[in-house]
Amino acid sequence: MMKIAVDAFGGDFAPGAVIEGLAEALPRFPQCEFVVVGNEAKVDFYLEKYGIAGHPQLTKVPAVSVCEMSDPSTISLRAKRDSSITACAKLLKEKKVNAMVTPGHTGATVAANKVLVRTLPGIDRPALAACIPNQKPYGRYLLVDAGANVDCVPMNLVQFAVMGSVYASYLLNVKHPRVGLLSVGGEDSKGCELTKETFKILETLPKDIVNFVGNIEGDTAF
Amino acid sequence: MMKIAVDAFGGDFAPGAVIEGLAEALPRFPQCEFVVVGNEAKVDFYLEKYGIAGHPQLTKVPAVSVCEMSDPSTISLRAKRDSSITACAKLLKEKKVNAMVTPGHTGATVAANKVLVRTLPGIDRPALAACIPNQKPYGRYLLVDAGANVDCVPMNLVQFAVMGSVYASYLLNVKHPRVGLLSVGGEDSKGCELTKETFKILETLPKDIVNFVGNIEGDTAF
Repeated sequence: MMKIAVDAFGGDFAPGAVIEGLAEALPRFPQCEFVVVGNEAKVDFYLEKYGIAGHPQLTKVPAVSVCEMSDPSTISLRAKRDSSITACAKLLKEKKVNAMVTPGHTGATVAANKVLVRTLPGIDRPALAACIPNQKPYGRYLLVDAGANVDCVPMNLVQFAVMGSVYASYLLNVKHPRVGLLSVGGEDSKGCELTKETFKILETLPKDIVNFVGNIEGDTAF
Repeated sequence: MMKIAVDAFGGDFAPGAVIEGLAEALPRFPQCEFVVVGNEAKVDFYLEKYGIAGHPQLTKVPAVSVCEMSDPSTISLRAKRDSSITACAKLLKEKKVNAMVTPGHTGATVAANKVLVRTLPGIDRPALAACIPNQKPYGRYLLVDAGANVDCVPMNLVQFAVMGSVYASYLLNVKHPRVGLLSVGGEDSKGCELTKETFKILETLPKDIVNFVGNIEGDTAF
């Protein structure tokens, strides 16, 4: 049984759209339990509206405030420690859930999780991995980082390459996943300072850790 | 009469594709003269093939070498000073043409022009301006810089905003062109160090110089 915290107050059409989606997810994922996080009265209203109030796969955890898109990323750790995002991260930290889902403020989500849940040993920063469809023969690719960080140093990107490889191997069942470095040109010499330095490090890694194939351009990913 | 240098040896399918395009351009731009730059024997072969040898709108300038995509950007100023790209930039510098066109090595083109033709006073770096179609009511937007630089400081982006505004006003006939700063989020607080610093400077500029509208996301441009 997997338990997932759902931030009902994230995203442009929250909480209605989130709870509408939850109603669709319940029968499709019978092996999952969902913890709905947010303002109780509003959550109850929409659970009722979408006919899932009291559903056996559902529990609720209240949260008072909401991280707005205009808030700084640190808001989830400072003025809005009672936010739905922070509440989800706390559930993760306390191992009351296995994962959290939010369509809300990315920076606030990353900040709360970085401080409360922390990264794996040897990993300095979290990354978001987005699985994106592309043409055959691959059918899909993993974009890492897809927005958890805005400014990175080369070693961050190297760690993302390692994490992405592990993710693709174990969760997407890809053998020896190819790792491309997104740059402004496919040739080794192309790139900004960040990607050039990253290239030099990725080249030196054992292929069974990171199967580095060099620079790729945006269109190659698709 | 506008005179344009055409690098026949730039791009993936040069020189055939370039000269085929030139043959289409000649009747469409009767007010233009074109200077075809590159290996004379090959240029002659394709001018013959596409039926434009000896055309009154055409002249030729020979160039021995070609900047390959795998070459570093400085190649046009060092080992390949006899390249078709460098020859085009020299024609510009000597005011023998009004503009140059190349589908070739962007970095080599920028480097040759930066050193030979130079930027306007007060402008530290050249930028490429790409006019890209989008939805009404605008119909198009100008992306600046579209690839002349890989690493920038805030003042570079500010200068691009000024150059782009002038370009849009005078060449695209847009009154008070709106200038958006491409970032990871529309809110003022979103962005990397580079865009945050740039935002602070753009905010202070008089609106008749740069009509700054704040951060925009990639989808807003389209």
